Amino acid sequence: MTELDSLPDDVRQAVAETRERVAALHAELPRWGLVSWTAGNVSERVPGADLFVIKPSGVTYDALAPERMVVCRMDGTKVEDWTSTGLNPSSDTAAHAYVYRHMPAVGGVVHTHSTYATAFAARGQEIPCVLTMVADEFGGPIPVGPLAIIGDDSIGRGIVETLEGQRSRAVLMAQHGPFTIGADGRDAVKAAVMCEEVARTVSIAQLKGPVAPLPQDMIDKLWYRYQNVYGQHAEGAS
Amino acid sequence: MTELDSLPDDVRQAVAETRERVAALHAELPRWGLVSWTAGNVSERVPGADLFVIKPSGVTYDALAPERMVVCRMDGTKVEDWTSTGLNPSSDTAAHAYVYRHMPAVGGVVHTHSTYATAFAARGQEIPCVLTMVADEFGGPIPVGPLAIIGDDSIGRGIVETLEGQRSRAVLMAQHGPFTIGADGRDAVKAAVMCEEVARTVSIAQLKGPVAPLPQDMIDKLWYRYQNVYGQHAEGAS
Amino acid sequence: MTELDSLPDDVRQAVAETRERVAALHAELPRWGLVSWTAGNVSERVPGADLFVIKPSGVTYDALAPERMVVCRMDGTKVEDWTSTGLNPSSDTAAHAYVYRHMPAVGGVVHTHSTYATAFAARGQEIPCVLTMVADEFGGPIPVGPLAIIGDDSIGRGIVETLEGQRSRAVLMAQHGPFTIGADGRDAVKAAVMCEEVARTVSIAQLKGPVAPLPQDMIDKLWYRYQNVYGQHAEGAS
Amino acid sequence: MTELDSLPDDVRQAVAETRERVAALHAELPRWGLVSWTAGNVSERVPGADLFVIKPSGVTYDALAPERMVVCRMDGTKVEDWTSTGLNPSSDTAAHAYVYRHMPAVGGVVHTHSTYATAFAARGQEIPCVLTMVADEFGGPIPVGPLAIIGDDSIGRGIVETLEGQRSRAVLMAQHGPFTIGADGRDAVKAAVMCEEVARTVSIAQLKGPVAPLPQDMIDKLWYRYQNVYGQHAEGAS
Repeated sequence: MTELDSLPDDVRQAVAETRERVAALHAELPRWGLVSWTAGNVSERVPGADLFVIKPSGVTYDALAPERMVVCRMDGTKVEDWTSTGLNPSSDTAAHAYVYRHMPAVGGVVHTHSTYATAFAARGQEIPCVLTMVADEFGGPIPVGPLAIIGDDSIGRGIVETLEGQRSRAVLMAQHGPFTIGADGRDAVKAAVMCEEVARTVSIAQLKGPVAPLPQDMIDKLWYRYQNVYGQHAEGAS
Repeated sequence: MTELDSLPDDVRQAVAETRERVAALHAELPRWGLVSWTAGNVSERVPGADLFVIKPSGVTYDALAPERMVVCRMDGTKVEDWTSTGLNPSSDTAAHAYVYRHMPAVGGVVHTHSTYATAFAARGQEIPCVLTMVADEFGGPIPVGPLAIIGDDSIGRGIVETLEGQRSRAVLMAQHGPFTIGADGRDAVKAAVMCEEVARTVSIAQLKGPVAPLPQDMIDKLWYRYQNVYGQHAEGAS
Repeated sequence: MTELDSLPDDVRQAVAETRERVAALHAELPRWGLVSWTAGNVSERVPGADLFVIKPSGVTYDALAPERMVVCRMDGTKVEDWTSTGLNPSSDTAAHAYVYRHMPAVGGVVHTHSTYATAFAARGQEIPCVLTMVADEFGGPIPVGPLAIIGDDSIGRGIVETLEGQRSRAVLMAQHGPFTIGADGRDAVKAAVMCEEVARTVSIAQLKGPVAPLPQDMIDKLWYRYQNVYGQHAEGAS
Repeated sequence: MTELDSLPDDVRQAVAETRERVAALHAELPRWGLVSWTAGNVSERVPGADLFVIKPSGVTYDALAPERMVVCRMDGTKVEDWTSTGLNPSSDTAAHAYVYRHMPAVGGVVHTHSTYATAFAARGQEIPCVLTMVADEFGGPIPVGPLAIIGDDSIGRGIVETLEGQRSRAVLMAQHGPFTIGADGRDAVKAAVMCEEVARTVSIAQLKGPVAPLPQDMIDKLWYRYQNVYGQHAEGAS
């Protein structure tokens, strides 16, 4: 009997459902052109447990069945499980774990090297808030985080220090690439898709010279409205 | 019995057919690379009724079955319908409604944030008429509309004031993105596809310096010919 | 009985086979990203007859069944045919016909508005021979043709005058887009695909400044070799 | 009986398995957008034999069944085989063979003309190590090789002289395109995919001006870590 088997029934059920969701969400990364080969990963917190589920390291998107998603503790170590076929979690697991430990409201984390967002990261330049879509989704510029070595806590710390208390759900880690957070895995994936979309559009616009940001009061109004009216979570959308 | 049920049979039939068309047209947006996630919408006027059909807010393109398309009155309010599963219409509905109220010949409206057209919008620069394809499709430059807040009539008014009496079926709303109009939904979708195509081509051409527009008399001839000869709606196309 | 029915059996068979090929080749245009909506067309000469087959005007690539391909005489007029459902040929048919009349070795013609090739056309700039792939496929720079009005013979004449006696199977018609020719329809489609490929690569390379062309003797050797050794039409490929 | 039939059973089995792998790997080239038409090829050394398997010349990716993959000796000549339907090997075979003869640890070779990597090659400029992904995958800048004529040993020699003793598995052959090597065919394909990915990202970043490389000690740490920890070939990935 493995460690996972010994968990209470409802937690094992929650793990199984999270694995289904995380496996399915990985298909969104190649679909929206965010990744080459295996270079991106999604994780999601297991509701009601001190666990999260993340992509195995170095495995292609074609081979991401739910039972291959790796279950981790909050310190980033792997929960042994007879169904996981011995796969190790993503080499970015420490960064995901750090975010979950320090940002309790975060339920999902995504990391990619999506082209245009990473091009901003290569230069250490934020994505300015020059479009209504940036204001809607990120509430202001998408900030740059520090250049950090992979493997210890420095990436996770850089993410948390940059995003804490900010509207933006995306950070461009310098000379590395974007990390996004969200209420759950799907929300973090959406942030990754929109981060690349606005990076691409702004990058192309900037090739002809600087672009003026939106006025701050318009940014505030767009952000407020999008949080409260857009989608199906509120009455009154017009 | 809902409000929709109480409509005459022929109107209910027209609503059903419009929903089918609008649902199918949404598949063209990701197909031609015009949208990320849910960031674009198509609407179409219901023939013979003071109604139009539009995408529900925040719903992905995979989930756009005909019965989920929302039926709206000309003031942009939703017609209650037991089949619509309570979905709210797109957050851009007020702008679509304004266009239908003020431009009676318009039967379809499309809004996207397609990359290159939005990059022109970010700079507040029109797409100049430097290619035969721009002259064919738009009869001249694609104009820029005002920077307007989402949610009241200012977007709709900006679209109508910019396009009224013009050849162009596309307007680049400043720091926001393109809106296109057409005789029906399909025609407006075509305009959205071609707007992005010419935006991309002209943007790439301009990276090496300014590009000279076509002579006005050639623009006029191309426009006249394309309106009268192209396609299957006229005899004599050679 | 229609005019097509009255043709000899072997010609009717050749027409049927050409229609199959031309319908299938149109699928290559969206596949390689050369076209938006309906903006591109392929034609092929019918072997052993003074006829060619071309795309109907304004019809989408999803609806291009063989029986919808339009059969034309060498003057560009349509051969009546009960299977063709009354469709008119492409609005570019006059240009295709002109090429077939004046270049007897040409068996296929393709016209697109593919993005990067059209960006060169917008500026009236040739694609310089800076890559082995340009030398292999085109034997030198891809030339620019004149700005010509659509609908009379001026496009066809511009194509023929630019390509006659040249190695290049592609011409960039100024402020319009590329036309390519080939031994048959497939060869012309290949030229269209490779023309866009080299246009894209060279365009990106040129953004950082001018790029030196290959030495002429290397261009000559690459061209000779590719004509005589590449592919399966010759022994000795290494 | 052909030459291939006369090989020992275990070698014939190894040839069959290599053909399966090489055929399947070719599907990765269009999937990741590395090739147009037929312009790219994969080869792999046959384990336990002085043979390698490579794409036939000028054949499209749709038609790449295992039995059509061509078996070659180490001098690049074709092994006659009744199943190979007489196809000639890729026109780049001499270069692949040269690499296998001079780099015994190399088990796979890939050649493409992928857009952004070839744009660097057109200018004769290396891809600088400005991103963690470049350090991870290539351990430093991706170097440029000499301008070499196709068909004799000069391409192979240029590849070997540039890559020998280097970390990088990719070389940008000047005014031609990238070649990549790997422990096997799959590893070389991964290098081709990642080479284009970093070329695209760095190219876009450089459009706004020079980008500073990573510090050398960070490059060394990232490279060491990626070789030893990433993926499923080692315990301890976090």
